[in-house]
Amino acid sequence: MIEIIQPRVLKGFRDFMPEAESERAALTEVLTKVFRSFGFVPIDTPVLEYAEILLGKAGGETEKQVYRFTDHGGRDVAMRFDLTVPFARFMAEHYGELYLPFKRYHLAKVWRGENTQRGRYREFMQCDVDIVGVDSAAADFEILAVIRQAMETLGVPDSTVHLSHRGVFNRFLARAGIAERSVEVLRIVDKLSKIGVDETKAQLTVIAGGKAAEELLEFIAGGEAFNATLERITRLAGGPNPDSDRLAEIHAMAEACSIGDRVQLAPSITRGLDYYTGVVFETFLDAMPEIGSVCSGGRYNDLASLYTNQRLPGVGTSVGLDRLLAALNAMGRKNQVAASVQAVIFNLENSLMTEYQAAAHRLRTQGISCEVYTDQRKPGQQYTYADRKGAAFAILRGKEEKAKDIWVLKNMKTRDSSEHPDCKALASAILAAVSPASED
Amino acid sequence: MIEIIQPRVLKGFRDFMPEAESERAALTEVLTKVFRSFGFVPIDTPVLEYAEILLGKAGGETEKQVYRFTDHGGRDVAMRFDLTVPFARFMAEHYGELYLPFKRYHLAKVWRGENTQRGRYREFMQCDVDIVGVDSAAADFEILAVIRQAMETLGVPDSTVHLSHRGVFNRFLARAGIAERSVEVLRIVDKLSKIGVDETKAQLTVIAGGKAAEELLEFIAGGEAFNATLERITRLAGGPNPDSDRLAEIHAMAEACSIGDRVQLAPSITRGLDYYTGVVFETFLDAMPEIGSVCSGGRYNDLASLYTNQRLPGVGTSVGLDRLLAALNAMGRKNQVAASVQAVIFNLENSLMTEYQAAAHRLRTQGISCEVYTDQRKPGQQYTYADRKGAAFAILRGKEEKAKDIWVLKNMKTRDSSEHPDCKALASAILAAVSPASED
Repeated sequence: MIEIIQPRVLKGFRDFMPEAESERAALTEVLTKVFRSFGFVPIDTPVLEYAEILLGKAGGETEKQVYRFTDHGGRDVAMRFDLTVPFARFMAEHYGELYLPFKRYHLAKVWRGENTQRGRYREFMQCDVDIVGVDSAAADFEILAVIRQAMETLGVPDSTVHLSHRGVFNRFLARAGIAERSVEVLRIVDKLSKIGVDETKAQLTVIAGGKAAEELLEFIAGGEAFNATLERITRLAGGPNPDSDRLAEIHAMAEACSIGDRVQLAPSITRGLDYYTGVVFETFLDAMPEIGSVCSGGRYNDLASLYTNQRLPGVGTSVGLDRLLAALNAMGRKNQVAASVQAVIFNLENSLMTEYQAAAHRLRTQGISCEVYTDQRKPGQQYTYADRKGAAFAILRGKEEKAKDIWVLKNMKTRDSSEHPDCKALASAILAAVSPASED
Repeated sequence: MIEIIQPRVLKGFRDFMPEAESERAALTEVLTKVFRSFGFVPIDTPVLEYAEILLGKAGGETEKQVYRFTDHGGRDVAMRFDLTVPFARFMAEHYGELYLPFKRYHLAKVWRGENTQRGRYREFMQCDVDIVGVDSAAADFEILAVIRQAMETLGVPDSTVHLSHRGVFNRFLARAGIAERSVEVLRIVDKLSKIGVDETKAQLTVIAGGKAAEELLEFIAGGEAFNATLERITRLAGGPNPDSDRLAEIHAMAEACSIGDRVQLAPSITRGLDYYTGVVFETFLDAMPEIGSVCSGGRYNDLASLYTNQRLPGVGTSVGLDRLLAALNAMGRKNQVAASVQAVIFNLENSLMTEYQAAAHRLRTQGISCEVYTDQRKPGQQYTYADRKGAAFAILRGKEEKAKDIWVLKNMKTRDSSEHPDCKALASAILAAVSPASED
């Protein structure tokens, strides 16, 4: 006996079985369709890049997690750990060939050797959408609108974008005299929803003093109507300026597109430390706030300064695909329809295989997805198979039916069956059953 | 000035610009749709696996080309170099959870550190389709039928599957007394189309003698009708047996599905040495035979013997995506429609941005993909942008049009324009123009 190699995957990696992969495919198809309807175009970049390029700006944690090695040609290479760094390199390399504003989406896998005990995977899918080359309220708004449309198309209209602006916040910090403590302040503010108001206030008081802490809490308070909150933070930041005007413009567009109530002004959203420079936002599902933001992003001053002197401002977002998928599952919003076959033609008599194949061919010509069960097994086994494939119909023709020259169409759910003289009639019956017009 | 990191990709790797990526996406969408219509389901496996698993059966060339390294946990890992080995591991690991026959497709990237001077890339996309767990003519036929349907759906119906059977060939070799020279014989026969009949005969004579060489050339001759060739090779192999019967059954199914003339019996097709055990085939585009097979495969006895004692026979195929894409381009069969936006709404007056966004929102609700040009630039610049995005229409509303309360719809190709009172009328005009029913 030959020695067997134990089949297994690496820790932190996983296979996608057909059901899970179909769900993921259905999700990415919806997102892709929505992105395209807004004029975003797809790009792709290599999985492997020079380590120098991927790690140019990264430090500490990222550097430790990246899969890095020396290739056959002695090059120091690494697998991408996000889609932003390769996009920055891509824009620096190609901006001369591209038309600006450049609106791209990129759905692809990335790798991080993270600690799997935190329930993280080492291989996962990212989905990024960006508009590069302009700094305008319209571009900021388009990113919010495309997310909003994606959520609606995915069947989760009850989601809310929490919007803020780093410029307004920074101006407030300067006015409150705590600009030089901004790193620590941001870190505390970011934890507000986790640690609560009292603890936030206590921590802020320690580093900024009682008065500044009070003002900060007033600044980051949310829950009011957009314009009321905007008025308050504008006042606390020292009066109107282009940053507060930007928020007002975005709000006006959201109102005009009937999504005003789905875009909240939430001054406590800051999104980390030094990357974002303008609007920042997070997206929460109303029914599952506990899972956190399923889609976050913001405006940056300069995407690709590591690789070019060309200034490339932009605005973008990342969809948390795994998190979103888990949430859709938890909410019972599975969408796998496209991936399941509509009909399975049973093999009740091997000598009729040519007829079965011809029938399958004709049904597909009518736009009906179907397959032939290839081996002549027990009908029960074939029913189980059709069930597993999610088929709505079984099609039966054995010796008896052949003698009567009929085809039997069986509804897998109701187990009702009907007889049909030929494939044309079979196809009509299936199409009538799946068309909403035929419903009572 | 900060030092810039030179933006560049690794040798043998490439970025996909929007046009190329849209073409690839359009191709994979068509293939996926066809696979699903036959009841194939998607799976995915990790890019990184234990090197021991990926290289278990590989030797020589493959081992030298694979990207292999030691990960953070000291594991000997490698990036997959094809989709067959991971699928074998997947089936060995999961066959207990799956329903057989298991019909899967897998479209994903693979990596090989090949010599790029031969025009090869080190990162490329593979597309595999297999039916595992049965050994029947129907399963063999389904693989041929799904390829055939894919070609038709891609707009290249003039393609031909060249089919053969390793069992019939082996029986012939044994009868001609040259079974023990089969490795060399197969190698020479595989080159027939490249080196021609005379050179093939000369080389075969050297290793098999004059009589066997004559018989071999008679065996591998093609060009006749399926049944005539089948009759000849069956006679030369010593009379009918289950293998020649299998070819006859497949031919009958092809005839029944009106693709009989597209499946040729081509006994010179052998597909390498020890992997395939039953039918083998290659697919050629009639207009471009010189690019070689765009889709090849065959039947194997046992997929996963390295990882399990469970015998898993199957039949499958690999689509040469890069080759197919290049051929489609050369033949002018580009398909990018889904990726280009239908209309660009110009920004002729920044103060009207809210109206532009609301119009875009309403058009998308009608199923029209569109975007707003975000900055108020010169109209010429906006026309250039709309052209680059492949938009069929430009939508214009400046101060003058606002005063008249109209929207102007401009056909980007004809430059004809028409005036409309509101977005509903705009949408109707666009939909009427793109709907075939409206054509004269």
